[in-house]
Amino acid sequence: MSDRITITGLVATQPRHIVTSEGLPITSFRLASTRRRFDTSAEKWIDGETNWYTVTAFRQLATHTAESVNKGDRILVVGKLRIREWESDERTGTGIEVEAEVEAEAIGHDLM
Amino acid sequence: MSDRITITGLVATQPRHIVTSEGLPITSFRLASTRRRFDTSAEKWIDGETNWYTVTAFRQLATHTAESVNKGDRILVVGKLRIREWESDERTGTGIEVEAEVEAEAIGHDLM
Amino acid sequence: MSDRITITGLVATQPRHIVTSEGLPITSFRLASTRRRFDTSAEKWIDGETNWYTVTAFRQLATHTAESVNKGDRILVVGKLRIREWESDERTGTGIEVEAEVEAEAIGHDLM
Amino acid sequence: MSDRITITGLVATQPRHIVTSEGLPITSFRLASTRRRFDTSAEKWIDGETNWYTVTAFRQLATHTAESVNKGDRILVVGKLRIREWESDERTGTGIEVEAEVEAEAIGHDLM
Repeated sequence: MSDRITITGLVATQPRHIVTSEGLPITSFRLASTRRRFDTSAEKWIDGETNWYTVTAFRQLATHTAESVNKGDRILVVGKLRIREWESDERTGTGIEVEAEVEAEAIGHDLM
Repeated sequence: MSDRITITGLVATQPRHIVTSEGLPITSFRLASTRRRFDTSAEKWIDGETNWYTVTAFRQLATHTAESVNKGDRILVVGKLRIREWESDERTGTGIEVEAEVEAEAIGHDLM
Repeated sequence: MSDRITITGLVATQPRHIVTSEGLPITSFRLASTRRRFDTSAEKWIDGETNWYTVTAFRQLATHTAESVNKGDRILVVGKLRIREWESDERTGTGIEVEAEVEAEAIGHDLM
Repeated sequence: MSDRITITGLVATQPRHIVTSEGLPITSFRLASTRRRFDTSAEKWIDGETNWYTVTAFRQLATHTAESVNKGDRILVVGKLRIREWESDERTGTGIEVEAEVEAEAIGHDLM
């Protein structure tokens, strides 16, 4: 069983659409999911922590996403999570970079 | 933990929107989710069985759903499942009626 | 995308294990999932409504479930939901019977 | 809506159980979830990539997890995902560290 995740969030980069030399459409973008929590001292809802994801869609879902999803949209994503680690070699030194990637099975505009 | 479900399907009835005497907005509609499966003899995708749900949204999600969701739309729903049973007394006799209800936490237009 | 569900509940019937003539192991049982809710007047948690499911496992998961799961166990199930309808012809008349079936992808003993 | 995830994996560290000065039981451990994929050239299932998580349970679930879950167990976890970033200051330089944390709502021993 794959690690399966359901997310609502804000599209943070304009979706990038490519078609591979084999003819496979791929669309990907960054998604920011911010948990809202009630601040009891201020007596109002405030933004909590943000989870960042790279969301990737393939085939027909990639084509439709490229046509309909834009930076700033609020969307709902269901997919498989992959936590990718790699060694980086940045100006500041060497470190382990980690990125949360979601291979989308379904994407929709969030009505909330 | 509630029974939590993720569904994609077709809105089968025009969403009905009410506001209770306490001021609570409620929107509900029927949703048909049909599993597609590959028929190896016909070598094409065909419709399989259909799950029927009554989807209900409350508060802000109810208001937005009433404004944006119409009969015939393909949507994505995340919510809590409730399987409701009651005794019916129909012309044809008495039986146990069962209905699958989903209290929506998120609804979006499906881009697939 | 299939209708995917996550449930915790009580095994209500002793799991029944068969092996088909093609050698496919199948195990199935009834599961009762009861929502707990806080009764503010009585100031304690009480049992709410119960969802009933028929859970079915295939292959290796079927074999392990038959060995380890018993009536009365609390378990956690992840799987695909299928709402099956059929016409019944009971003593009391004819009606539409509905049953919620879950094809299990993962089953575990619930530690809660 | 929180980012909700369902995982099966291997417990990679012996669960650590503490009770805070306020009396709150907390149990946490590392979990490795490895996707299996079919290698068509070798004609067998092989291990694919591994997702690493820190799983944390609170209250009654923390107590039961500490009693029943051990390093090496295969388990099933349902919970809320939090991707935590912080600046590290390691020997090799400064970098952004990222960790995937799951606040467990349900944990069970995986029967697969």
